[in-house]
Amino acid sequence: MPDGSLIFPAAEYQRRVRALQGEMSQHHLDALLLTTPADVFYATGFLTRFWESPARPWFVVVPSNGDPVAVIPNIGAELMGRCWISDIRTWDAPDPVDDGVSLLADTLISIVPNTGRIGVPMGQESQLRMPLADFTRLQDRIAPRKITDGTAAIHRSREVKSEAEIDKIRATCAIADAAFANVPEFARQGVPLSQVFRNFQVALLQEGADWVSYVAGGADQGGYGDVISPAHERPLRDGDVLMLDTGAVRDGYFCDFDRNFAIGRVGDDVHRAHAALYVATDTALSSLRPGMLACDLHRIMTDELTRQGAVSCGGRLGHGLGITLTEWPSVTPLDTTELREGMVLTLEPGVQITPNRILVHEENIVLRADGPELLSPRAPAEMPEIRE
Amino acid sequence: MPDGSLIFPAAEYQRRVRALQGEMSQHHLDALLLTTPADVFYATGFLTRFWESPARPWFVVVPSNGDPVAVIPNIGAELMGRCWISDIRTWDAPDPVDDGVSLLADTLISIVPNTGRIGVPMGQESQLRMPLADFTRLQDRIAPRKITDGTAAIHRSREVKSEAEIDKIRATCAIADAAFANVPEFARQGVPLSQVFRNFQVALLQEGADWVSYVAGGADQGGYGDVISPAHERPLRDGDVLMLDTGAVRDGYFCDFDRNFAIGRVGDDVHRAHAALYVATDTALSSLRPGMLACDLHRIMTDELTRQGAVSCGGRLGHGLGITLTEWPSVTPLDTTELREGMVLTLEPGVQITPNRILVHEENIVLRADGPELLSPRAPAEMPEIRE
Repeated sequence: MPDGSLIFPAAEYQRRVRALQGEMSQHHLDALLLTTPADVFYATGFLTRFWESPARPWFVVVPSNGDPVAVIPNIGAELMGRCWISDIRTWDAPDPVDDGVSLLADTLISIVPNTGRIGVPMGQESQLRMPLADFTRLQDRIAPRKITDGTAAIHRSREVKSEAEIDKIRATCAIADAAFANVPEFARQGVPLSQVFRNFQVALLQEGADWVSYVAGGADQGGYGDVISPAHERPLRDGDVLMLDTGAVRDGYFCDFDRNFAIGRVGDDVHRAHAALYVATDTALSSLRPGMLACDLHRIMTDELTRQGAVSCGGRLGHGLGITLTEWPSVTPLDTTELREGMVLTLEPGVQITPNRILVHEENIVLRADGPELLSPRAPAEMPEIRE
Repeated sequence: MPDGSLIFPAAEYQRRVRALQGEMSQHHLDALLLTTPADVFYATGFLTRFWESPARPWFVVVPSNGDPVAVIPNIGAELMGRCWISDIRTWDAPDPVDDGVSLLADTLISIVPNTGRIGVPMGQESQLRMPLADFTRLQDRIAPRKITDGTAAIHRSREVKSEAEIDKIRATCAIADAAFANVPEFARQGVPLSQVFRNFQVALLQEGADWVSYVAGGADQGGYGDVISPAHERPLRDGDVLMLDTGAVRDGYFCDFDRNFAIGRVGDDVHRAHAALYVATDTALSSLRPGMLACDLHRIMTDELTRQGAVSCGGRLGHGLGITLTEWPSVTPLDTTELREGMVLTLEPGVQITPNRILVHEENIVLRADGPELLSPRAPAEMPEIRE
């Protein structure tokens, strides 16, 4: 990591801010107020695990012209000072009386005219990372300036990745791929799933992850039940299907893909399910093009699963990926987001083997003008078997 | 982890819900709406790393009487079904048109009378983990029911830990203590700090952490600059002070403490600073009592630092700890929260060695009737030296 800050040259962030300002202009926004780790990192390069503490709010204001202004707790001044922006305003946080509200209000008042509009992401997949009572106080303080929905500006900018970003995601995918190659070393019969999860995280770190924000998975006879539970303590046994799924992070960028392993001998129904998922993914890889909608991609994969005689297990079959584990759009029948060149997406079809057993397969791609380019090295066509 | 869910017997959660309902009654709340990983885990035992995905909101409604109701994406039904509550309502999320708002509104309408008040945490350290536009829609849908600030109810309940919770935090502290004992094995001169961070996370996992939500630190000549930056690539060298700070997690409970190491020979000013921090912590350990305020604890430590001839480096000198890395209160001059028996706190004095170099020392305690009990095994009085 380049000196633990910035990650990219300043020009990358300047390009992003210009993109944001282009979108803001279309939506008649005089400023954009960002409060989340991902949005702040996107605009400034400010990357820290300190967000794990809910104690303090952090703000970045993107004006309609010029560079962003950081309004942050003074504990972050040193790190933000090594990022590309120069206007950094701090307060002694946490302050139970006024936790940055006055400083933020003064900043917005100095930037936005009386009749102006300030965008805050309010739509799907967004969160406001500041206390709600402080947000109400802020609205009162900056009136008659109006706060309005700024989701589209941040979505349309962030969703198309630069080549520099794509390189970062590809590098994180390579780390996960190398860690997956080590799984047969430690995922033996008799080892508790919880220990497999620990060893997998160790492998990700040893292969170069800065940290491991997400590991999930499952292991059970002939498939698994759900894919979001913490690991159970039951040892792996012959006939289990083991799935490991990771969102590891390097330089602030995530991968998000899984791999399945047969522990000893698994049934033909499992192999058939894996084959169907593999073909459905291949079909998406060969037919997806920019201009299609997220729901089109959903249809491509479910239609192929049906052709293969498999039952899709519902839910979304993929999503955006980048500086959070999951980003918009959602590959569902209802999401009509246009898939654009430069978007990084997961393809994540799942099938139901029995009413309580599913199998999920995942790859990461970037959408190019002529179709998807894999960022995760393609899974083997046959599910690997881990034998004693 | 007991079957990857629940963590504690149902009675523990029932006790918590009764505590919440007692606070709700005092604040005239007919229901409490919880949206964050910590609050949902606290009330239900629902623990998953899936919160890492910002795609879907999750809701738990605590009524004034009876058990909580979960209103959650269907992907979580299986795991929530293994928790202690039985009323679980799901929708097919993410839904771009209605992402749980109608289901949540119907639930609140069925529980809360027309004239009723619904508490939502809005105060310091709180966040609303749902899109703001959906929150506005919800308010419209449930009118004339009012949403009001429910921070006090959740704070007064969560801040006093049960013995079962204290045991969990002590266990996580023991894991970190064992990992710190391994630091001299890998933090040698010539090893880049980024590699030290990776190895430390590996050690935490190998000692039994389920995952590592937070590692920070620093290493530089005669102290470090800030404590929130990602690791730099510079190799450790003679005269560096290395600090590692971790919020590892086991069974959903955090530790949060640091340790300092002298890489080779460090100056007397560093040893003096360490001694002052050690004495200031001892003074807090011997004099803190229930009924004191957070600001009193701040004064105890800063006064002792002054007596030791050290310069306190400002900011907060400790905070609550439990199911998030940091919880209220904040050990600052402004925080007048009463420190109560059963609170788990960090003691985190820091001193300025030179204008650009600080040293921070941290322990975790539970406040008993007769004073603090250490949960982190006490740091050595002398900073350990790592020699070639």
